[in-house]
Amino acid sequence: MTRGRMEISALADGVLSGDRRALARAITLVESTRTEHRTQAADLLERLAGSGRESIRIGLSGTPGVGKSTFIESFGLMLAEQGLRVAVLAVDPSSARTGGSILGDKTRMEYLSRHPKAFIRPSPSQTHLGGVARRTREAVALCEAAGFDVVLIETVGVGQSETVVAELSDVFLLLLAPAGGDELQGVKRGIMEVADIIIVNKADGDLKATATRTCADYAGALRLLRRRPQDPDGFPKAMTVSALEQSGLDKAWSDISELITWRRETGHWQGRRAAQARHWFHEEIRQTLLARLQTPPARNLANKLSHDVETGQTTATKAAAALIATLWPEMTRDAATESLDLTQDTT
Amino acid sequence: MTRGRMEISALADGVLSGDRRALARAITLVESTRTEHRTQAADLLERLAGSGRESIRIGLSGTPGVGKSTFIESFGLMLAEQGLRVAVLAVDPSSARTGGSILGDKTRMEYLSRHPKAFIRPSPSQTHLGGVARRTREAVALCEAAGFDVVLIETVGVGQSETVVAELSDVFLLLLAPAGGDELQGVKRGIMEVADIIIVNKADGDLKATATRTCADYAGALRLLRRRPQDPDGFPKAMTVSALEQSGLDKAWSDISELITWRRETGHWQGRRAAQARHWFHEEIRQTLLARLQTPPARNLANKLSHDVETGQTTATKAAAALIATLWPEMTRDAATESLDLTQDTT
Repeated sequence: MTRGRMEISALADGVLSGDRRALARAITLVESTRTEHRTQAADLLERLAGSGRESIRIGLSGTPGVGKSTFIESFGLMLAEQGLRVAVLAVDPSSARTGGSILGDKTRMEYLSRHPKAFIRPSPSQTHLGGVARRTREAVALCEAAGFDVVLIETVGVGQSETVVAELSDVFLLLLAPAGGDELQGVKRGIMEVADIIIVNKADGDLKATATRTCADYAGALRLLRRRPQDPDGFPKAMTVSALEQSGLDKAWSDISELITWRRETGHWQGRRAAQARHWFHEEIRQTLLARLQTPPARNLANKLSHDVETGQTTATKAAAALIATLWPEMTRDAATESLDLTQDTT
Repeated sequence: MTRGRMEISALADGVLSGDRRALARAITLVESTRTEHRTQAADLLERLAGSGRESIRIGLSGTPGVGKSTFIESFGLMLAEQGLRVAVLAVDPSSARTGGSILGDKTRMEYLSRHPKAFIRPSPSQTHLGGVARRTREAVALCEAAGFDVVLIETVGVGQSETVVAELSDVFLLLLAPAGGDELQGVKRGIMEVADIIIVNKADGDLKATATRTCADYAGALRLLRRRPQDPDGFPKAMTVSALEQSGLDKAWSDISELITWRRETGHWQGRRAAQARHWFHEEIRQTLLARLQTPPARNLANKLSHDVETGQTTATKAAAALIATLWPEMTRDAATESLDLTQDTT
């Protein structure tokens, strides 16, 4: 898979024209960790950076069993039938452990995957969260450049993956199943922080009453949290849907649209996008510098110092100064000490 | 305030002997941002690192008006009367803006501040959160070395200060006032993630019924969250107290003790302390490297690149690589690119 400049240029044109095969190839390229592919991917992304296209990025989290596939299938089809182009991406750091892939089986979304307005990208196997963030961010950028109206970014919420998805989304949905009493699994701490809409699925048949009660419980919990500046009246909210019976999905979409319109008019949309861009810029710097700590001699020293801090033999401040003096000798001890004061303005 | 090695040695001895004036002077030293004082503070802390003493560190957050001072006064006095030595520290990044200080007025805790078993440290004015984390961590270490049984770390919860306090505490308490309907201010998102016990204060007089209802609401919300490995049955929990009438405080202390005993027996206490030590070690490295980005030529480049990323003119990946190539030229482009793969194992 060697590509010259000409080929990257052709690939960029293919993505911009909305060609799905070009998009699929471009995503494969950004998923590669080989050095030459990383260089080509960076070139491709820079070419596409100025496309000026903006999708609605919807993050979606839910544990297995809440009916996530059925929801995406029904919700995605509804949007596609309205003429919107819908892309579905997955963030699944668990696949590295299970060997599986939450979107590996396209039959999971049988109708949506065959719809001409839809694009579904299976989650790559063998992934780790550090790489997932960059790869997913780049895949989102590719879908956006390819002119998709909506990009759905799905996660099962393992590890820090909701945080990654929240930093990539304009709107974040949390999907839950009806439950009460002993069945109640509870949502991961931290997710209440990022959820814009809590959607209780399976509000159908025998589960309808339980779904309504679950929804009321979460609505109550949301009211106990302080209002965020980026929320209009009534948000974040909890609602019920039945993906199976396709009820409530139009309401979910109109709520998402209302939220987005409000955030666009008040500048919160733009502010969030800019803050996310800053976040990823700093995150890339951080990751690259941390990687330096992972090279063999540095890693040995870092592990030893970390152990000394954990066992109380030295302080975090002294250990960090010692590590930096070894790895970045051009930062003298004085500069390092002085810089501690400067950091006060950065957080 | 120039101190030689001898004087630092004497100061260390004073702290270890539990001398309150030596402790106060030591905290003043770690609060200083002058380069020579930072060096002396680092020496002092390293001398004390091996003291082997361990306090119970209790983090406490609550907005103004919940009766935080009254709670600390009553709760602290109860502990002191039991023969425990109690230190109170404050994390108040807001004081930089308001010029005030949440613990500036010792008369706020009139009886506790005069108790021979208690030590109250007013919050320094003119502080910024980046420095607050290090300074508070060091003040906690000093109190611990001075043999205090309990260190209460108080915050009004501005910015990220709960996160800082949570990373310094063995147990985290959230103090709330009774409220319902329109009065309900709501708790800051993210705090549910770190709270071990939610304490609804002012369960007295006219407010008693409202306090009970508020407590039930939060108990319900806590049940909707997933159980954390570090929690025994029944935790996190919500309870009511009246700091004014000094009721419920013994129950709060027995709950804290139960939680701590359980975590000690299961190894979660030790695990948390080790994880916190690692966190602060990495945080110090991060802050020092970020500080490098704050020196004038680097800052100008970083600002320009951040702007380019925010406006979509370049990608986070390319911008980060460009910045690092300029600031750390010894990290070649190839090494930087390759390192992106290595980062996958770090998160």
